[in-house]
Amino acid sequence: MIVDVKARIGAFSVQRRSRKGMSMQIDLNSDLGEGVGDDAAMLDIVSSANVACGFHAGDPRGLLATLHEAAARGVAVGAHVSYPDRSGFGRRAMDVAPDDLTADVIYQIGALQALARAAGTRVSYVKPHGALYNTTAEDVRQGDAVIAGVLGADPGLVLMGLAGASILGRARAAGLRVVAEAFADRAYTPEGALISRSKPGAVLHDPDIIAARMLRLAREGVLEAEDGSLLRLGADSICVHGDSPGAVAIAARLRAALEAGGVAIAPFAP
Amino acid sequence: MIVDVKARIGAFSVQRRSRKGMSMQIDLNSDLGEGVGDDAAMLDIVSSANVACGFHAGDPRGLLATLHEAAARGVAVGAHVSYPDRSGFGRRAMDVAPDDLTADVIYQIGALQALARAAGTRVSYVKPHGALYNTTAEDVRQGDAVIAGVLGADPGLVLMGLAGASILGRARAAGLRVVAEAFADRAYTPEGALISRSKPGAVLHDPDIIAARMLRLAREGVLEAEDGSLLRLGADSICVHGDSPGAVAIAARLRAALEAGGVAIAPFAP
Amino acid sequence: MIVDVKARIGAFSVQRRSRKGMSMQIDLNSDLGEGVGDDAAMLDIVSSANVACGFHAGDPRGLLATLHEAAARGVAVGAHVSYPDRSGFGRRAMDVAPDDLTADVIYQIGALQALARAAGTRVSYVKPHGALYNTTAEDVRQGDAVIAGVLGADPGLVLMGLAGASILGRARAAGLRVVAEAFADRAYTPEGALISRSKPGAVLHDPDIIAARMLRLAREGVLEAEDGSLLRLGADSICVHGDSPGAVAIAARLRAALEAGGVAIAPFAP
Amino acid sequence: MIVDVKARIGAFSVQRRSRKGMSMQIDLNSDLGEGVGDDAAMLDIVSSANVACGFHAGDPRGLLATLHEAAARGVAVGAHVSYPDRSGFGRRAMDVAPDDLTADVIYQIGALQALARAAGTRVSYVKPHGALYNTTAEDVRQGDAVIAGVLGADPGLVLMGLAGASILGRARAAGLRVVAEAFADRAYTPEGALISRSKPGAVLHDPDIIAARMLRLAREGVLEAEDGSLLRLGADSICVHGDSPGAVAIAARLRAALEAGGVAIAPFAP
Repeated sequence: MIVDVKARIGAFSVQRRSRKGMSMQIDLNSDLGEGVGDDAAMLDIVSSANVACGFHAGDPRGLLATLHEAAARGVAVGAHVSYPDRSGFGRRAMDVAPDDLTADVIYQIGALQALARAAGTRVSYVKPHGALYNTTAEDVRQGDAVIAGVLGADPGLVLMGLAGASILGRARAAGLRVVAEAFADRAYTPEGALISRSKPGAVLHDPDIIAARMLRLAREGVLEAEDGSLLRLGADSICVHGDSPGAVAIAARLRAALEAGGVAIAPFAP
Repeated sequence: MIVDVKARIGAFSVQRRSRKGMSMQIDLNSDLGEGVGDDAAMLDIVSSANVACGFHAGDPRGLLATLHEAAARGVAVGAHVSYPDRSGFGRRAMDVAPDDLTADVIYQIGALQALARAAGTRVSYVKPHGALYNTTAEDVRQGDAVIAGVLGADPGLVLMGLAGASILGRARAAGLRVVAEAFADRAYTPEGALISRSKPGAVLHDPDIIAARMLRLAREGVLEAEDGSLLRLGADSICVHGDSPGAVAIAARLRAALEAGGVAIAPFAP
Repeated sequence: MIVDVKARIGAFSVQRRSRKGMSMQIDLNSDLGEGVGDDAAMLDIVSSANVACGFHAGDPRGLLATLHEAAARGVAVGAHVSYPDRSGFGRRAMDVAPDDLTADVIYQIGALQALARAAGTRVSYVKPHGALYNTTAEDVRQGDAVIAGVLGADPGLVLMGLAGASILGRARAAGLRVVAEAFADRAYTPEGALISRSKPGAVLHDPDIIAARMLRLAREGVLEAEDGSLLRLGADSICVHGDSPGAVAIAARLRAALEAGGVAIAPFAP
Repeated sequence: MIVDVKARIGAFSVQRRSRKGMSMQIDLNSDLGEGVGDDAAMLDIVSSANVACGFHAGDPRGLLATLHEAAARGVAVGAHVSYPDRSGFGRRAMDVAPDDLTADVIYQIGALQALARAAGTRVSYVKPHGALYNTTAEDVRQGDAVIAGVLGADPGLVLMGLAGASILGRARAAGLRVVAEAFADRAYTPEGALISRSKPGAVLHDPDIIAARMLRLAREGVLEAEDGSLLRLGADSICVHGDSPGAVAIAARLRAALEAGGVAIAPFAP
């Protein structure tokens, strides 16, 4: 039996990843502008850059430099919005009132939009970062506050979230376009959820296994869960990490395997 | 002899304040969104609001609330950009590299633009705050960095500065529209500079004297310097303070005097 | 029936508030150094000052000034430690890892200790602020992290907490002295908990009622709950607010009533 | 001719580096706790650690970890105090009022003192960081504010500064012990000043040349200036960098050369 995570939340994909007799493509996204890792190396690999907005990491000048490099390579730009938590790198859940969160999201999107304009590009999408990503995936109160923030800043923006997360369905209902992503190096439960990082086997390290899994996902829309069962996962983007030399190597290996397998790497947005 | 400060830097006014046989008008601006003073009271008096952008004061939710109130009253909005100095309220000069400053200005403008859109209004102009205002008035290196930031964020924005400051001429040369302002409660040197706050008599406190001086400035374009000589000052806006009950009362008295004297209060921008 | 909250957590009081045939005394504490309210007025009323440490409010120069004023009046000083949340004034719960929280508490205590030394006084106790106060009252993980922080900074410090809160018992078991406080202007459940601020009647406003309640608490150790039942509450300190002119008036009225009723106001620590 | 920089400012050394017929020793110090570079590697090389205090870099938990590692190795700890400038890493001069600066210094020293106590060590000295280091070397107003801050926090602390800088003489006059340092990888003017980094040749890169220069300095108290003339420099400590693998290698090479040359590495403080 294949569990169809996509069906659970509706066909929210903004585009077809794969059409019979046509070339296949998928988006690769990575977190950038955080002042850690090798941004330039990752920008040569990915098609979308989740750029920090200053609330968990990043200063305006560094962000502007990253945006210039993204623009030069035609890499799409997303606003990687966060709780206001620099000391915790945005990794700590905060019980923020919805009105605070909405305003924080608008502020961050706007700041990055202006920097992107100055760099000759634009913000195409919004992806919550760290603890905000995890909380808003299912928490209606904070998730709706983020959706309101995106709508308030620019209703033309796309919201990126975890394939299967309920926020994507609510965002669609609120009028936003959404894009679902899968994580290249994470193991999944049979229900389509990520295995908690605190559990053994949650994070995959073998570049070949990672590449094979994502190639199958891109071509067939299917991903093997930790128990061997198959998940049908509607993912238009794959998240890769670049915060260590090993992570960059995994991302490069994945890109090569996808292209060798007939899957083009391109931003999800037109 | 009347010293013509306006002539020193060229006719940079974006509009005529006073035309023979026509109704006169001037703009009143004040610093808002700083979490001090009575924003609502000042928004009933002024025609332009210099709204903090989070670098010297203000949090996104509070800024959004101020912007909603400005929008409801038709008060024009300016981005009150600052050095990154919350602990010093932006009052301390910083030796910021031009590229840092440019990026900081873009970031702040963008953040406020998005909040303004969400509040149903827009940012019309940019005014440096505190130490950044003082430094950039004449410092070419930092002044040009601010000009580059405004141009990078949105070349349609107007730059507000001290009447007579050299930054206004350079901003015009760079393609920006500018607006010059006078300070309602400050004494001026015969050369058109502000008397330093550390000197006696630098700050005026008598509401009637302040109102009479500004009425003459609005009607005749003339302001009396501390030595009794007359300055010709091309000011399209008058800056008033609202950080104390007494300051609000002075601003209200000024507005009433201007209107009683036939000078309409209206934003400088169309 | 009188519910004995004190019994629930053991006799944690650091001193006797009332002894037969002896003069009675109690401590009055208030939040200070936050840059809001009238610190000088409150320092004339209270015997203990919970001084902000920069994480939710306060800058070093302002804190030093507050500490000088506390020292001049012989008011005891507590470190009012908080989550790192200036934009939210420390009012938002954060899912901070215990090791982060412990280090944050040590950092804040140390910073205030040095400022206190420079002002000629010393930090006597620690009181968590806002959301950290509420969370640590019963949350063992974060509460123990705060206890570890106090012990790490200085085992001679006293921990102040809500009368009846379980953190006080755990702190005692860990070797800290503790002091329990009651809130002057809050209604209590029959079980000794504070009524949530979101419910009607949670906050008391009548200065005379507040003064009468606290006088009885100081003299008899008894407080009337919202349903009219009586609580036996072992409180060595009463928290009063000073963030508005009305709040200062309530605090002044309370002090006068206590003194008129034979209860001296003095810091809980020797 | 040998220019005697030491003579210019008096014999401010806290100890003899070299005595005839006795073993020679010198201190090696490095900036740590900044979240960049390899702290553990550097702690195996240096004898003194300038630990960030959160104003230019560092969060409490990370600082505590660095302090634990310093304690385990017997490395002395200094408070690396800075302007409040995280976005600029403390590298930008700020026109901070003396009272603000004094309070900022006290706050930072205290915070690090408490963390050091919790880690089983203590703060022995204070070294201004980045722009604050450069400004206070000669600026009397800000330099005296730092001296006041050190005295306010703990008069037993030692102030570390550039050999030859006037702040050291003023600190001594104010009652502080001081220690002078030289920079391993910097070229000097014939007057004993550092060549500006913006000039060619300002930074030395050859590990052998650096080691030979510092060995001579440690043994003879003499350093060759850029024009070949000799400087007599009373330095009790040598500053090495560790923010890149190459920098760590230079530091390790220097330590090995000093020890091979009969110079022991030990903290300057007893």
